[in-house]
Formats: sequence, C-alpha cells, structure tokens
Amino acid sequence: MRMYDLIVKKKRGEALSAEEIGFIVEGFTKGEIPVEQMSAWLMAVWFQGMDNEETSSLTMAMLRSGDTVDLSDIPGIKVDKHSTGGVGDKTTLIVAPIAAACGCVVAKMSGRGLGHTGGTLDKLESIPGFRTELSEKKFRENVKKYGLSVIGQSAELAPADKLMYALRDVTGSVDSIPLIASSIMSKKLAAGSDAILLDVTVGSGAFMKMKSEAVELAQTMVDIGESAGRRTVALITNMDAPLGRAVGNSIEVKEAVEVLKGGGPADLREVSLALAADMIYLSEKGGRKACRKMAESVLEDGSAYKKLLEMVEAQGGNISYLEDTSRFPKASVEETLVAERECYLGGMDAEKIGIASMQLGAGREKLGDTLDMAAGIYLHKKTGDFVRKGEPYITLYANDETRLPAAKATLQKAVFWEDEKPECMGEVLARVEKDKTEWYE
Amino acid sequence: MRMYDLIVKKKRGEALSAEEIGFIVEGFTKGEIPVEQMSAWLMAVWFQGMDNEETSSLTMAMLRSGDTVDLSDIPGIKVDKHSTGGVGDKTTLIVAPIAAACGCVVAKMSGRGLGHTGGTLDKLESIPGFRTELSEKKFRENVKKYGLSVIGQSAELAPADKLMYALRDVTGSVDSIPLIASSIMSKKLAAGSDAILLDVTVGSGAFMKMKSEAVELAQTMVDIGESAGRRTVALITNMDAPLGRAVGNSIEVKEAVEVLKGGGPADLREVSLALAADMIYLSEKGGRKACRKMAESVLEDGSAYKKLLEMVEAQGGNISYLEDTSRFPKASVEETLVAERECYLGGMDAEKIGIASMQLGAGREKLGDTLDMAAGIYLHKKTGDFVRKGEPYITLYANDETRLPAAKATLQKAVFWEDEKPECMGEVLARVEKDKTEWYE
Repeated sequence: MRMYDLIVKKKRGEALSAEEIGFIVEGFTKGEIPVEQMSAWLMAVWFQGMDNEETSSLTMAMLRSGDTVDLSDIPGIKVDKHSTGGVGDKTTLIVAPIAAACGCVVAKMSGRGLGHTGGTLDKLESIPGFRTELSEKKFRENVKKYGLSVIGQSAELAPADKLMYALRDVTGSVDSIPLIASSIMSKKLAAGSDAILLDVTVGSGAFMKMKSEAVELAQTMVDIGESAGRRTVALITNMDAPLGRAVGNSIEVKEAVEVLKGGGPADLREVSLALAADMIYLSEKGGRKACRKMAESVLEDGSAYKKLLEMVEAQGGNISYLEDTSRFPKASVEETLVAERECYLGGMDAEKIGIASMQLGAGREKLGDTLDMAAGIYLHKKTGDFVRKGEPYITLYANDETRLPAAKATLQKAVFWEDEKPECMGEVLARVEKDKTEWYE
Repeated sequence: MRMYDLIVKKKRGEALSAEEIGFIVEGFTKGEIPVEQMSAWLMAVWFQGMDNEETSSLTMAMLRSGDTVDLSDIPGIKVDKHSTGGVGDKTTLIVAPIAAACGCVVAKMSGRGLGHTGGTLDKLESIPGFRTELSEKKFRENVKKYGLSVIGQSAELAPADKLMYALRDVTGSVDSIPLIASSIMSKKLAAGSDAILLDVTVGSGAFMKMKSEAVELAQTMVDIGESAGRRTVALITNMDAPLGRAVGNSIEVKEAVEVLKGGGPADLREVSLALAADMIYLSEKGGRKACRKMAESVLEDGSAYKKLLEMVEAQGGNISYLEDTSRFPKASVEETLVAERECYLGGMDAEKIGIASMQLGAGREKLGDTLDMAAGIYLHKKTGDFVRKGEPYITLYANDETRLPAAKATLQKAVFWEDEKPECMGEVLARVEKDKTEWYE
C-alpha cells in the first residue's frame, strides 16, 4: 500500500477501506508518512468528504493509536457528556450531578484545553481544596460510591488525533465534518463510557454557525458512536449568546450552584435539564418524558445539589464555598457598562464575549497560561431584553486593571442594539438519535 | 500575509492576486513556507483550479525564482519549440533544421530529464564527437552563424518549479492543468526566446489522454505566453502510437535523418512539417500556407538536411555518421517478434512501448542512469497495418540480453490485434493560437 495512491483515490472521490485508513493513521502516527502527504490527503478529504463507514474507520484507527480507559469494573451503564464548545458553558457542573442524583454513573476524565474560559477541570479547581488529580483507585471508588467523579485525564487518548489536528490547524482542513466528528468521537470512545450524550452547539459562539451543519455533525457523531456499540444521542443547542449570564471560572461555578439550588438563568436551566434528561434516558432509567421528570424533580428536591456537594467533598473541595458562594474571592477590579439609550439588546456575538473574558484573564491564550479564577464577565442583559438609558448591561471582573481596556473594546463590538424587540431562538434546536432527527421550532 | 489564509482562500474557490501568489512561491522557495502548507495549497488548487490571471501570476512568480536567458544580442526573432512529451519523439532533430533553413533563429538550451528514451540532448550525443556543452560565447556565435544551436542548459531556470514539482509528484497534484501549464511556461519564458511553439501531445503515450484536456492545456499555455509578450502557438498532436517507427537514441537520429533526406515515416514527416511551418509562421516569415510551403521546400531541396550537418559539425559531431547512418554502432542483441495470425494491428499502447524501450536501456529510470545509445525498438508495423502470420512487427535492440525478457513481456501487452481494419486518427488534431482554436478532423 502506498500513501500516494490513497491520496489520489480520495482526490478522485472514491471511498477508502478500513484497512487503507488504518494504514494512513498508523503510518502518520509512527512518522512513516510525511506531513506533506498527510496534509494533501486531509485537504482531499476536506473536498471529497467521507462516507459513514470511512468516518467510523478513521475514528477507530485514531482510537487504536493510544490508550483506552476500561471502566468495566464499575457496575452500571457509564454515561459521558461532551460539548463541542461554547461561551459560558458550565452545564457539566449542573448536568452531571442531576444525572448522578437519578442513579446514572458518570466517570469523567477530562482533558485541559485552550478556550475563552477554563475547562470544567479549571472551573472545579476554583473551589478551594478541590483536587482533579485523584489516583485511579480513588476515582473508581468515588464513582462506585457517589455515581460521579470528574478528574484530569492521565492516559494518552487518541494521540493520532492530536497530531492530525495540529496539522489540520495550519493547513486549512479543520472545518470538515468527518474530520471533526472522528476527532471528537475517537477521544470519547477511548474515555470508556457505555453511552455518550453530545451537546453540539451552534451560533456565533460555536464552531458551527449553521443549524444544518450542526445537525450533520451530530448525525455523523451519533452514527460513529452507535457503530462502535455505544448508545449515543446529540442535542443541538443554541450558542448565539453565552449560556447563562456568567462567563469565567468561579463566577460560572456560582451560577451552576444557583441552578442546582433551583434558581439561575432560565436558558441555562433549560439546556441543563434537556441534557440531563437525555443522560438519564441513555442510562436506561425510563422513557424520555419520565427521564425529564426525574431530572426536574432532583433539581427541585435538592438532591442534585447534594450530589455536587458529595462529589466536591469527596475530592477535597471546601463545600462551604458552595453553601455560601459569596465566600469565593472577588476580583479586585470591576467595571460596569451602561446603556447609552433606551432600546432592546438586539443580539450578541458570543465569540467576542468569550475573547473579552480571555483578555480579562479567565481563559488561556496558550497552553500553560495561568488562569485568573475570579476574572470574567457578567451579562445583566441578554438578547431580547429591554434596557433604559444608564442601565447596566455588562460587568467586567479582573485582577489586573491593564486588562480592562482591550476587553472593553472587544465587548463594545460584541453587543448590538435595536429599537424593536428581536425574535429569539429556543435553547434546544434539534435532537439526533440513531436514524432519527427531531427538529424543534 | 499568512499562508494559512491563502490556503483557505483557494480552498473556498476565490482567486488569488499576483501579490498573494508571489508570496507563496517566494516563501516556499526560500523555505519559509513549510511543505505541509504548500502541499495543502496545491491540493486546493487541484480542486478549485486557477483562472488565467492566476495561472499567469504563478508562471511569472516561478520565472522570477531563478535565472533567465537573455538572447537579445542575437538578431532576429528567436523561436523555441517544446513538446509535452511522447514516445519516439525526435521532431526537434527535424523541425529545428527545417526552421533554421527557412531563416528562423533557434537558440535552444535544453535540460535533461527522465524518460522512455533520452532527451534531444542525449539523442544528439549519440553522434560521435557531438558536444552539448559549448561555452555561452560559442553557442551565441553558432546561432548567429547558422541560425541553430542546441546545448545543455547551464543556468538554473525556474528553481521554484523544480521544488513544487517534486512536492506535487508525491502528494498527488501533478495532473492539474494550471499547474502543468505554469510549470512548462515558466521554464520556456526563462529560456529567453521571443516566440514559442508548443507541441501538446495526446493519447496513450502522452500525459494528456483526452483531446479536450490537451486543448485546454494548450489554450492555458498560449494565454500565459501571450500575456508575457511572447507569440505562442500550440499544436495538439497524436501520441496514441509512437511517432515514426524508431524508439531509442541513435535509431531515432537515423530516422530523423531519413526524414530530412526526403524519406522516413509519413506520420513523423507530417507532424514535423506542421510544427516547422508554425515555427516559421511565428518567426513572421509569411502567412501560414506560405510557411508550410517553405518548410516542404527546404525538406525537398536538401537544405534542411544541410542545416543539420552544419549544426552537428559546428558542435564537433562527426557528420559521416549522418551521411551514412549504417556507421552507427549496432546493438549486440536483437530479437524480432512475429505475428501469430493474419490480422490487423488494431492499436498500441505507446506508453508501454516507451517503458519497454527503457527496459532495454534506452531511457533513464532514475537521474544519473547511463543510456545505451544503440538500444531501442523498431516498429515494422503500426496501427491499421495488415500483417500476415509469421511477419515481423517489432524488433528489440539491446546490448545486454538479460534486458530482453522484461521488455518483451511489456511489448506483448502493448499491441492489440483486430480482424477489421481500425480507424486511425490524424496526426495534428487541433491548433491553438491566441483567442483561436481550430479543431481538425
């Protein structure tokens, strides 16, 4: 088999066999296939696409390139949740406790990455004492005891994906649905859960800008998961504006706690309930309606909140910060933006809000950057809200006042004003299950 | 400017500016743009193509990457001729003397390459004493005196093309019309002639298999040449079978001499006259009909043959070999294939015949291989000819008998037999001039 022939085959639009795709991924990972051939092949894939079988083969080949986590000693259906990324996305902090409170088993090993804010691991670490580096033994014990643990990933999952992504990133082949789907799913399959709930975000703060693309990505990932014998469901959720009102690290933890205590912003509550319901459904606890009811009831009766406290305590976190979130350290600098005239908030560019949050110190621009846990943004108003002249709409938090001007400039470009009340999209736009797509609204 | 953005721009089908293309070619040649980005961009060009302006910009950028030959001290219109390659193509040995005999100025610096047989330089070197390494001064003197000289290229023409071609060759982007056209034309423009005649071959022995593709390539190259201020014409010629009957080095010289002496195979004579007529036309010696007449008359009256003798003598060659071609050293081994039944020669795969000739020692498999000047193939029969049982149709020549079996096996797959006389295509299939394409037959 020669890489040259496989480039030409894909270039001509022919489908590659599992063996051929395995040859490519293995050869590239071992350094036997040079970068110039791999990037030409990836560009050919960008143009010609891949059918479901090829995409599954690519996923499995990347999966085989590294370690896989074996969770089989833990009883029950292990269910994982993954979001394609967004701004203000603290749903894992809400959804995992809800699911665990309903008897689901959530054994989550997360990676760290770049982003507008820290990842779930970073947000949890803003709780004093919380440890994301448990021994594997302790992790498994906690999952068995509480049904929930979230730790940092020690194994090297799908290293081929890491190498391929780095190449795609500089050669213009990132935005390809089969390549995105296989990249995500190779890591999810390696993480060892039996069922996977995907949150595919769409809108100005998401990688996918069009609902139709997001649905296609979701269908591709569901197909990969199901082909690999994992029950997989995807929700398409709205990321045109940040989710909830808080963007940062500890302020997102506070907001998650508010939801778990029965309050919090309506959009965040709704997306969290929808995601949790499907995790419960994937754990075979009942029909979809029943699962939704279970999710609502553990939120109402406080048992989801209690589950969060259990997990945090079991990982060394000081739960008094959750019981009284005013204990979290405050940012030393804050500035509030006020409306210049009476009007409606017509829309916001969630990505720009994310960038502003990073400029304030809440996210990493490059790997190894330290995060400011107290930095971030609070949105007093969201799309569709009416504002009076002089009324606050955004507050910026930082511990370094030199960070404010750039973030403010970014935010001023991130918010649009209108005289008429704009129409707002719903929060959950579609749901994809094996061979079945429901479009909402 | 960032290479990443230019990959994405081309990937989306947008046209790049001359400045952008210049940035790519210069950056890649200097090693500032890495191979993985360049190969992704080339693959994007393969898919999206390039418009005439982009193709011209690419050609000019590759031209600027190296030396250019200045022929302005030589009086008259300097006319060059280039073939996209074929099997048994010895037309330069015939066409250049015809054109020079009609008063054209042919100052040709040729490169050496890989191929089924040697290139024009190698074929000329099969004449004992012939030197292709003249000083530049001597070369210019000879051109002024005789109107004709062919030497090896000393300058480094279009090194960017060499680097890009090497990359395309391993990453599957060779077969792209704008990339082929700019590759050829960058070297032709660098070679310094005022007018360029292109022989674009089509058929089983050519790179282009379809007439329509060959015409598109020709139109693209003519457009590039004319945009650069060089009069350019292209003929599309038939390479479904080898041109003439001889495939090799000294046996091709012999056949060229036969044509110049008024004999030789009809197909070779016809293609040579057509090419020569257009070189004369590009040298502004008259209308097209008049130019064709001139070409025929210098062939008939022996002055074209005399011109070859002049050139060979001026470059140290022993012309007694041309006056009596039986003096050329004979191959020590020969084998003749005979027909197994009475039938027609229905067709031949010219590329396979070329490969067989290389297997006999007449061509280079890799750079640096030495050629066997006497090795090669003679075709007693060509497409459409009737053969009786036992009648010879091919003779193989070699100096190493271990080379025969592989070549024979290749040749047996290269010839097809039919019971009915097959239809034969003409030799010149189309002619492309600026904004004008004539299709023949």
